[in-house]
Amino acid sequence: MADFDIVVRGGTVATASDITVCDVGVKDGRITALGASLGPGAREIDAGGKYVLPGGIDSHVHIEQKASVGEGVLAADDFYTGTRSAAFGGNTTIIPFAAQYKGQSLRQVVQDYHELAGPKAVIDYAFHLIVSDPSEQVLGQELPALIKDGYTSFKVYMTYDSLQLDDYQMLQVMEVARREGAMMMVHAENYDVIRWLTNKLTAKGHTEPRYHAISHARLAEGEATNRAIHLAELIDVPVLIVHVSEQRAMERILWARNRAMRVYGETCPQYLFLTADDLDRPGTEGAKFCCSPPPRDAESQEAVWRGLQNGTFQVFSSDHAPYRYDETGKLAHGPNPSFKQIPNGLPGIELRMPLLFSEGVLKGRIDLNRFVELTSTNAAKLYGLYPRKGTIAVGADADFAIWDPEETRTVTWDILHDNVGYTPYEGREITGWPVLVASRGRIVVEDGELNAERGSGDFLRCALPEPARPLEQPVPEMDPASNFGAHLLD
Amino acid sequence: MADFDIVVRGGTVATASDITVCDVGVKDGRITALGASLGPGAREIDAGGKYVLPGGIDSHVHIEQKASVGEGVLAADDFYTGTRSAAFGGNTTIIPFAAQYKGQSLRQVVQDYHELAGPKAVIDYAFHLIVSDPSEQVLGQELPALIKDGYTSFKVYMTYDSLQLDDYQMLQVMEVARREGAMMMVHAENYDVIRWLTNKLTAKGHTEPRYHAISHARLAEGEATNRAIHLAELIDVPVLIVHVSEQRAMERILWARNRAMRVYGETCPQYLFLTADDLDRPGTEGAKFCCSPPPRDAESQEAVWRGLQNGTFQVFSSDHAPYRYDETGKLAHGPNPSFKQIPNGLPGIELRMPLLFSEGVLKGRIDLNRFVELTSTNAAKLYGLYPRKGTIAVGADADFAIWDPEETRTVTWDILHDNVGYTPYEGREITGWPVLVASRGRIVVEDGELNAERGSGDFLRCALPEPARPLEQPVPEMDPASNFGAHLLD
Amino acid sequence: MADFDIVVRGGTVATASDITVCDVGVKDGRITALGASLGPGAREIDAGGKYVLPGGIDSHVHIEQKASVGEGVLAADDFYTGTRSAAFGGNTTIIPFAAQYKGQSLRQVVQDYHELAGPKAVIDYAFHLIVSDPSEQVLGQELPALIKDGYTSFKVYMTYDSLQLDDYQMLQVMEVARREGAMMMVHAENYDVIRWLTNKLTAKGHTEPRYHAISHARLAEGEATNRAIHLAELIDVPVLIVHVSEQRAMERILWARNRAMRVYGETCPQYLFLTADDLDRPGTEGAKFCCSPPPRDAESQEAVWRGLQNGTFQVFSSDHAPYRYDETGKLAHGPNPSFKQIPNGLPGIELRMPLLFSEGVLKGRIDLNRFVELTSTNAAKLYGLYPRKGTIAVGADADFAIWDPEETRTVTWDILHDNVGYTPYEGREITGWPVLVASRGRIVVEDGELNAERGSGDFLRCALPEPARPLEQPVPEMDPASNFGAHLLD
Amino acid sequence: MADFDIVVRGGTVATASDITVCDVGVKDGRITALGASLGPGAREIDAGGKYVLPGGIDSHVHIEQKASVGEGVLAADDFYTGTRSAAFGGNTTIIPFAAQYKGQSLRQVVQDYHELAGPKAVIDYAFHLIVSDPSEQVLGQELPALIKDGYTSFKVYMTYDSLQLDDYQMLQVMEVARREGAMMMVHAENYDVIRWLTNKLTAKGHTEPRYHAISHARLAEGEATNRAIHLAELIDVPVLIVHVSEQRAMERILWARNRAMRVYGETCPQYLFLTADDLDRPGTEGAKFCCSPPPRDAESQEAVWRGLQNGTFQVFSSDHAPYRYDETGKLAHGPNPSFKQIPNGLPGIELRMPLLFSEGVLKGRIDLNRFVELTSTNAAKLYGLYPRKGTIAVGADADFAIWDPEETRTVTWDILHDNVGYTPYEGREITGWPVLVASRGRIVVEDGELNAERGSGDFLRCALPEPARPLEQPVPEMDPASNFGAHLLD
Repeated sequence: MADFDIVVRGGTVATASDITVCDVGVKDGRITALGASLGPGAREIDAGGKYVLPGGIDSHVHIEQKASVGEGVLAADDFYTGTRSAAFGGNTTIIPFAAQYKGQSLRQVVQDYHELAGPKAVIDYAFHLIVSDPSEQVLGQELPALIKDGYTSFKVYMTYDSLQLDDYQMLQVMEVARREGAMMMVHAENYDVIRWLTNKLTAKGHTEPRYHAISHARLAEGEATNRAIHLAELIDVPVLIVHVSEQRAMERILWARNRAMRVYGETCPQYLFLTADDLDRPGTEGAKFCCSPPPRDAESQEAVWRGLQNGTFQVFSSDHAPYRYDETGKLAHGPNPSFKQIPNGLPGIELRMPLLFSEGVLKGRIDLNRFVELTSTNAAKLYGLYPRKGTIAVGADADFAIWDPEETRTVTWDILHDNVGYTPYEGREITGWPVLVASRGRIVVEDGELNAERGSGDFLRCALPEPARPLEQPVPEMDPASNFGAHLLD
Repeated sequence: MADFDIVVRGGTVATASDITVCDVGVKDGRITALGASLGPGAREIDAGGKYVLPGGIDSHVHIEQKASVGEGVLAADDFYTGTRSAAFGGNTTIIPFAAQYKGQSLRQVVQDYHELAGPKAVIDYAFHLIVSDPSEQVLGQELPALIKDGYTSFKVYMTYDSLQLDDYQMLQVMEVARREGAMMMVHAENYDVIRWLTNKLTAKGHTEPRYHAISHARLAEGEATNRAIHLAELIDVPVLIVHVSEQRAMERILWARNRAMRVYGETCPQYLFLTADDLDRPGTEGAKFCCSPPPRDAESQEAVWRGLQNGTFQVFSSDHAPYRYDETGKLAHGPNPSFKQIPNGLPGIELRMPLLFSEGVLKGRIDLNRFVELTSTNAAKLYGLYPRKGTIAVGADADFAIWDPEETRTVTWDILHDNVGYTPYEGREITGWPVLVASRGRIVVEDGELNAERGSGDFLRCALPEPARPLEQPVPEMDPASNFGAHLLD
Repeated sequence: MADFDIVVRGGTVATASDITVCDVGVKDGRITALGASLGPGAREIDAGGKYVLPGGIDSHVHIEQKASVGEGVLAADDFYTGTRSAAFGGNTTIIPFAAQYKGQSLRQVVQDYHELAGPKAVIDYAFHLIVSDPSEQVLGQELPALIKDGYTSFKVYMTYDSLQLDDYQMLQVMEVARREGAMMMVHAENYDVIRWLTNKLTAKGHTEPRYHAISHARLAEGEATNRAIHLAELIDVPVLIVHVSEQRAMERILWARNRAMRVYGETCPQYLFLTADDLDRPGTEGAKFCCSPPPRDAESQEAVWRGLQNGTFQVFSSDHAPYRYDETGKLAHGPNPSFKQIPNGLPGIELRMPLLFSEGVLKGRIDLNRFVELTSTNAAKLYGLYPRKGTIAVGADADFAIWDPEETRTVTWDILHDNVGYTPYEGREITGWPVLVASRGRIVVEDGELNAERGSGDFLRCALPEPARPLEQPVPEMDPASNFGAHLLD
Repeated sequence: MADFDIVVRGGTVATASDITVCDVGVKDGRITALGASLGPGAREIDAGGKYVLPGGIDSHVHIEQKASVGEGVLAADDFYTGTRSAAFGGNTTIIPFAAQYKGQSLRQVVQDYHELAGPKAVIDYAFHLIVSDPSEQVLGQELPALIKDGYTSFKVYMTYDSLQLDDYQMLQVMEVARREGAMMMVHAENYDVIRWLTNKLTAKGHTEPRYHAISHARLAEGEATNRAIHLAELIDVPVLIVHVSEQRAMERILWARNRAMRVYGETCPQYLFLTADDLDRPGTEGAKFCCSPPPRDAESQEAVWRGLQNGTFQVFSSDHAPYRYDETGKLAHGPNPSFKQIPNGLPGIELRMPLLFSEGVLKGRIDLNRFVELTSTNAAKLYGLYPRKGTIAVGADADFAIWDPEETRTVTWDILHDNVGYTPYEGREITGWPVLVASRGRIVVEDGELNAERGSGDFLRCALPEPARPLEQPVPEMDPASNFGAHLLD
């Protein structure tokens, strides 16, 4: 009789710090043993010569969410196609956004997204909250209650008409996060800079996709990143700067991290593999590459690689924001839309990890532990899913992918499993692919097939990323020379 | 018969770069000769053993201006007492503000200030414009016209309810400055940070003056300074950050200057000689020291000194913003006002230069050339008054002060000539005083007496600080990697 | 019948990235399984409520080595007392130095140390080589051969009369390390600065121990650190700066690391818990605290803590260099020796980990994963002992310590197990102690007793820390703008 | 009857801070008046539309000095041709070196150079001392006595076999400078790095001139610059880093200057206008461009320009080190010498100022005041020649050049007045030339002719650059955390 439901034999198992050749035993959806020679499993999988890695956690994806730019457009992937594509890319968890738009009840928003996700997801999911309307009710009641219910990270936007918070509102949201112990995520671009440039450009008739990259100036990102860090410093709250694309923002993150502040950085494949030149492709094709921040230049790509090496970044996500290149998506406002009307975002959920594995690990830029850390472990830790997710360890969910480091495929959209219709990485050759993916002990991808029912993914309640830090000083000793906003929290 | 109206004999004449022992010959209000042994003057002044320095230019003073905080309160000095006090302090030029409040016509504001200043000033003056309402009329017509009329520097505020511009408005004002060649001045503090802290503090009943220093957090200044620099970089416009008080703001200025950007810094005596502890004096006395940014701590003082040495700062002004310590000024909202109601500002027009001379030059922290540069020459150059003002050179206005480096006085308000009723520097011993001051060849201060009629000061039209830089790139070659906002100017 | 020789049940097992509550199964000296509920062990150990951590690797210790300062003095610990003390401190591996003195054959030196260590060590050990005489024979034959035999890290000294290499010699040694793939370790202090200060001080009669700290000026360390990094950059060789004590050196390491250079930093307990004031204790007692670099000040301590948090440091070692406070050690040159004659070094092998656990982990400065990484995993990886040592993983040696996080002891030398006679940390209260220590499955410390035979420790051959990087450019394309020394290697 | 010997009428007179259109009156070799309309001069010079600038001070030139590399080779210019060429280039003062070689008496060296210079120089000169053999006699007797005699700056070399001092010797020389108040100049390149690279390159047969640039690696300069600054910091002595060529060295200088340390930087035309590519010209022609540090790349050129703008550099000198491109100079060791045998140095004394004027001032990179400061005033101040030299002010020597900002010449060696036979700037078009040069009221260059007798130049005794700073702390309070070497001076 089998000791385990599954035994994965002889793979090279990697965590964020270790690499071990051993067997992995799974029972009741969890990893129950790692051993040199485990007893039999009901299912035996030979992983010799392959890597057994924690299932990826794509902690920045937009699923069934309305576009922030380009009114009324909806992301092309629903929770079925999105999680399916994620699974094929080696992921076992995604964290999409429950996105509040102005005037909405956050609680209602969360319920709505549950209704969308529950019947469709094939792998597990948690939700970040996007807070765009920090009303008294949201701040005073909904957010604290939602945190207790397992929604422990809030994203705020410093730009986009429909989402932008001013600094005061950011402080208000951070205040709740600080008090309750939640994590802040910030889309850091200076709204007014982008608005001013956009107005200038369009007034001059510069509306082609390439001007999107120009309107989202690099310094808009650098400035806002610094500002977000300062606001977080005032409130003494952990903050993660999402989708960082360029040097100045990176410098400010590194400055903060060198001071041992709780400031974290995230980057995405588009900043490693695309440039602003892609937005200048013939005709309207550049629309396919419009995202915010936009891809920059070769020097920025190199800087982002260095940021993956030197600890500037903790998380590598896809920022999957999938719009079809047709009238339902990128071209919803006509065949030659102004860049102002092009929904912002790129697909990437399925290629995020293969791209980084191929160009990062196999080309020696980062090691395998760092790959695991960037694609899975750190997200689990920062968002309160660890140790259930994010590692291969006894007691963790049996979420893993078996990677064949020798398999080479040339990317075309046909080999992907999303609903987007194109890929920005068309034609690129990638070596190293996940060939088997398990979620809670269910083998969801094998032999290029999906073996998972719609709705078989579970919702994950997130824990607090870290216990709220006690204040070191009481109010009466407030020192004007230091950050003390936190001392004023009620 | 006299060759000159005045000859100053044998003084040690200093400019921003040179020190020469020579005679100075004045005719018709101008310096017409410097010589080893000039011919006779109608008036002969012996300056042996004394310094002959360019008259100070206090380029940051508020005269007959309404307080930004504490509704309805007016600065205590009018153009007579203000310029009188300035003259006794070794100054021969002031540059106060023509301050627009929301809804006002800038042109009308300028006319109003002329009506206030013209009949009263005893030394020369120019005006900076405070732009708080960048309406289409202001941006499109008034500002360009005013620049042509000699108002070539605009100050904008990033904080204060009544004055604050958002980043978009700052860009709009900068755009005019860039196109016309004017100089931007920025009061750089993050409005929302201060507002949040103020609300928190007052909600907790923390309303004493000391909480003013806490509400104006250091990081609010550091953040806003960085932001102002980025906005100016986008537009490629010269920008001077006024009244810098602390390290992080200084670091960002120095960062920009090390990159050879046209970013300038100003500091003031209150950041060298006062600290936040002064706001914590017994009772309401702390109100005397409420200004924005507030004085910080001893370490910041040291940093500010270093900034005077290492080139972070180009201008040392007083930010004279004089409110009496009574019901017409600091206590207009009652004997125990909340810090929210205390007009922000300190007097300093008369002591600015003696304080810096005594503690800076005589104590060896800066040399005499640097003193001249910081107190006079640089302001003249940056604000378009050079070479008429700001130096002792043939052709310049005969604006100078003779300093006795050995005279020591203990400061009490009684020995000053303003209308404020107190001095923040009460009791401090200062060595080195201006003992004779000449404005356009008129000896306006001598033997402790004022010899100048009300209204004898002249209005100075400012030239452009520097010729508008030609754009290096045409629009079609816009590079998303660099600053290019300026290329979008019409 | 038992499945395992030992099963450790229910402990909280930590690696450099993970924390898991699970059982650990040991067989034949290795960890063969981690599981939720392992089968029986011949020996069962209950670790409930306790931490099971990888055995510490103290990668910087001096055992049976002659003092560099104070002629003829020998370290007080031999391989028996040294490894015994190490084991009681939670260590299962030490890496002492095989120290060449001028004129010696390195091969002979290594053999000599083996003869000292083999019969006495109670835990495992590897050797770093100290190269003080890079003769042609050493460079051309001995070093390459020794690397192949498992001695893959070389330490060089930039100071000490008897050990110092000049920059040319350092380049020569680095050249061998680069070619073969070995790791460089550098004691970075400017020899001439220290010599000049020492001569000046002693000429003035300043010979008390406190002047040792003054002679080893902070800038001597900052300068030499920068120099060592530049030399390593030229040769493109990995370099670890040992025992870093102060800010400027840290800044240069961080500068290099931010550039993703292969530069590593190490610090030690004396820089967290002692200051230069300790060298100024009454009488000659300061001699107990003489080490190089010396402890600095409180601000440096804080900086070193930050360096442990922000990634400046990868390794936390003891630099155990034990001299008795008597005529065989610190006072070998009389009861009132000049600081020039006091052997440099402190004991610390037993308290290294308890100090960091108590003040670092339990006080929230670093987390448990970081503790493991700093005290064990990183040393294993950098010095080629991983994955046999440095982690708790299937296949690794069963080297672990069980820590009781609630046990508090007050330090006196009596409770330690070295041969030094004093401890610099006398009187300090420490919470969190290793209560059971296993080396290759042998329980060597339990219930405060040593259960290990002299000579039962094994010598460890080190692998190369990382494969030698291929050169990216051939010689003909040497670019004067980059580092290219490596292209000139034969 | 004339009031003046010379009156220069209506020129645009510039100092380091001012620009004035006025007359300049000269009497008895000095400037005795500046005026709007001076009385008659025996000689009247119309300078309308032209610039009247202080005579250049070329403070880094090698005249009649033996080459440091390439045994026995002598600089091609003697004090006649060197000063003649200098005068044509707008200079009125040079400061060559009295260069000690090992074993020589410095006093004797100085006397020798006087014998060479006295009979030949046509403009004034002072001497820096090169100290290569800091014997007891040199340090204890000769240097202090020479300082008193007006030799107040010492240059030391960190590289070159024949000149190099080790750090200890540098400290010894700095100690004398600190005690007496003299200025240190440092040639900062790491000797061992260059030596190692040179040996490697030549062993591989890489001996062409281009390998000179490779052997003098950029990091050798960056490292040594940092080291020199640290040594100077220890002794608290002012230090000027000569001929800085690249970014890393600049960063360290700026780092020190931002801390308000007395650290100064110098650069030269070769780092603005040449690159390492010039050393790779066909055949042996690259030898013409061999100097140390070598020209770098385009990015470094840009950085050096920025350093002229942002205050990194205070002095712009030529480092004129003239070797003919024949068997008496560059090719003394044969027609195809190894780069090891090529004398290091370029001519530049005559083009230094025209190059900077044309490319710096006229192209808007620096303003006229900065030009004056960099080419004349700062050198005068730093080396104790001010206010006699370095400015146009009453009382100063009548040393000036009249520049025609519209004259354009194409450089060929034929139009120059040195004895070198080639110019590295052949073919370059330069706008803005000195058309009349006066030294102490003697018009030495006019209409392209030299009007000065051999030997008519005067030797200048230099004052101390600044008074020796009193020590702030007595020895008993030595603080191990700060620089304190100076407290140990006898």
